[in-house]
Amino acid sequence: MTGLFVTFEGGDGVGKSTQAALLEQWLRSRGEEVVRTREPGGTEVGQRIREIVLHHRGHIDPRAEALLYAADRAHHVASVVRPALARGAMVIQDRYLDSSVAYQGAGRVLDADQIRDLSLWAADGLLPDVTVLLDLDEVSARRRRDADDKPFDRLEAETDDFHARVRAAFLALAEAEPERFLVVDAAQPVEQIAALVQARVAERLG
Amino acid sequence: MTGLFVTFEGGDGVGKSTQAALLEQWLRSRGEEVVRTREPGGTEVGQRIREIVLHHRGHIDPRAEALLYAADRAHHVASVVRPALARGAMVIQDRYLDSSVAYQGAGRVLDADQIRDLSLWAADGLLPDVTVLLDLDEVSARRRRDADDKPFDRLEAETDDFHARVRAAFLALAEAEPERFLVVDAAQPVEQIAALVQARVAERLG
Repeated sequence: MTGLFVTFEGGDGVGKSTQAALLEQWLRSRGEEVVRTREPGGTEVGQRIREIVLHHRGHIDPRAEALLYAADRAHHVASVVRPALARGAMVIQDRYLDSSVAYQGAGRVLDADQIRDLSLWAADGLLPDVTVLLDLDEVSARRRRDADDKPFDRLEAETDDFHARVRAAFLALAEAEPERFLVVDAAQPVEQIAALVQARVAERLG
Repeated sequence: MTGLFVTFEGGDGVGKSTQAALLEQWLRSRGEEVVRTREPGGTEVGQRIREIVLHHRGHIDPRAEALLYAADRAHHVASVVRPALARGAMVIQDRYLDSSVAYQGAGRVLDADQIRDLSLWAADGLLPDVTVLLDLDEVSARRRRDADDKPFDRLEAETDDFHARVRAAFLALAEAEPERFLVVDAAQPVEQIAALVQARVAERLG
């Protein structure tokens, strides 16, 4: 018996945490064991990696950054995700390898295929059963980020142009794997999005 | 104009630091700029990575460990080694990608070729001009480690069998690239080893 691996993807401020929480509630109400986790930082080792990546003051070489994310992924998949799936739990994760490809590959200077290969090596080939892409136009996304009063970390401080490239990269990934991806317009009401997500997950649970 | 990249490899206790220091002295006496560095930990980011790899109390997934070493390498090569070589300096480094292959590949559970590919990607293809392998039989190596009274870190605490496999892996790497490697019997007197190293480096300096 094996569980279900669901990931939420999209830019900052699109509502990934809200939707992950709603999916968790819904699955728990059906009696499922749910493990909610995130990258980077889902483990103790990952927390320390996250601190380096997000809060280091100087420049970090792009390859080093990609490798740090991959290291977090390798440790997290091996110590959290795989054991949970093996015992039949539902794993709901905020960001996974599509974020790496979109942010580090398309968004920065590295080749997207190499980033994908690196991530898959780190994860020893583990792909999600369902990936929900919460897609939001740049103007709305910026408005949501501005409304948030927490201090911006390094990624969030990038330009609007950067966010636009990341969004395009996410949409290209979804187009390449329509079976795995559910693309949702994140400007819709929260409950409406949650219903679409539940429908897709229910379909996979059979 | 470009400098020379010299790495020292071998197990713990074979005398890498001593030989690196002697080579540095000799090159400085010839008027060369010398940058002495090491992996892991040659940068501030690297120091933080080193702390995670060497001193984390729990289990670290082998792929995560390999990726952390690769991240340190990427950052170190891009921010320290390449700039130094570009201005014509001599870079003397304690451990580089051959250590990753020997320790993480042959010594642990991962495929050596994958580790080599990962390291080369991290370093964007940079190989040393000269790699000195200080080779020492296991009994002598163990004696030297025991004579040292500093506390053992995670790698040093591995079994004799592990060290034997690492040694065999280093020797196999040297055999595959005789142009790059100088293999030296580390049981010889320090000055004799230093002379062999100087001869090889002098040859490369032309």
